[in-house]
Amino acid sequence: MTTKRRSVTPDPRPAAAGRQPRDPADDVRQRLLSAAVAVLREDGFHALTQTRVAERSRLRQSHLTYYFPRRADLLMAVAETVASQMQARVSVQSNGRPLDIDGLRAVLHAQLADRELPRLMLALVAAADEDARLGAWLVRFHAGIAAMLAAALARAGVEAPADALAVFQATLVGLRVGGLMTGARPAELSSRLDRALDHLLADSSRDPGKVA
Amino acid sequence: MTTKRRSVTPDPRPAAAGRQPRDPADDVRQRLLSAAVAVLREDGFHALTQTRVAERSRLRQSHLTYYFPRRADLLMAVAETVASQMQARVSVQSNGRPLDIDGLRAVLHAQLADRELPRLMLALVAAADEDARLGAWLVRFHAGIAAMLAAALARAGVEAPADALAVFQATLVGLRVGGLMTGARPAELSSRLDRALDHLLADSSRDPGKVA
Repeated sequence: MTTKRRSVTPDPRPAAAGRQPRDPADDVRQRLLSAAVAVLREDGFHALTQTRVAERSRLRQSHLTYYFPRRADLLMAVAETVASQMQARVSVQSNGRPLDIDGLRAVLHAQLADRELPRLMLALVAAADEDARLGAWLVRFHAGIAAMLAAALARAGVEAPADALAVFQATLVGLRVGGLMTGARPAELSSRLDRALDHLLADSSRDPGKVA
Repeated sequence: MTTKRRSVTPDPRPAAAGRQPRDPADDVRQRLLSAAVAVLREDGFHALTQTRVAERSRLRQSHLTYYFPRRADLLMAVAETVASQMQARVSVQSNGRPLDIDGLRAVLHAQLADRELPRLMLALVAAADEDARLGAWLVRFHAGIAAMLAAALARAGVEAPADALAVFQATLVGLRVGGLMTGARPAELSSRLDRALDHLLADSSRDPGKVA
């Protein structure tokens, strides 16, 4: 992906210019997080260990355990980063204009080929049984994805009822988990996603000023 | 659940009568499995340990480790048992006639309240990363659920295209995983399931001889 990392970090402060970050602590955390995302993307979920991420970041492991005391802390931060990157791709097209429905469809298709975010999420759901903080985080994360989808649809001129959107989100989750379970080809998953999106559009009103 | 265990076990041999099972080995395995399902239902997924199941079955733990050498073996067998129980409920109504669509809908609604099968499946999906046998089992399990749904729909006079059925199955999976993630109330999940089932019916042809 060549998308620039504009508005990707959850940190509301403007990105530091050049080699002089405003806050060294944020810089260390960000280096660790970038290393973790790179490990996840290149080597997969099982490589996402504290040792491996520390090595990749070229920082001492003590830094990692300071910012992410438990593996779950690292997984949550990585999931947020991946979701923010997805949000950035959904929010703007390369030409800077909002995505239309076909653009959104293409972004969602691309997502289906990725097996690492679903693996990450499953690990977090499993860990939530033993960690109450994680339960609350998962509720917020799930709601954040729903809000992102609703906003992307609204920008494309589609007003989706909450229940129809919830069904669509469930289908996305199920396609990704099912893809993990069965190793279904991305093309199969894409054709199912298209059908689910058609259902969503049929259940939604469209803004006649925006959609031909 | 008061459903009798007819045709529930994957074993094709007829059930042994009374206290004299035909094959003592099958009886031991069945006792262990019944104990495991009871532990799962009553105490939840995290109680499903080899020690706990052995205690509950009143058999020595060596029996358990003989039949289910690894926890994954126990989880697979329990998932198959739970799925067979579901299949038994989908196949016949209490009066012995096939379910119509509303009957199938009611069975699926009841499923949504259960959080233990999704937990079990997530654990198996996570473990599949490290156990190739499990990957093949998950593919078969997923296909088995699809076949069960297709058969139930056909008995209710609905011919669902494979792709529409796959979308519906993905939505079911996503609703159950999402329910686990967010603690959504069963009523919310049911209303989403109804919408997904409406989509499936709209995408299917109905047998005019069977459906009014």
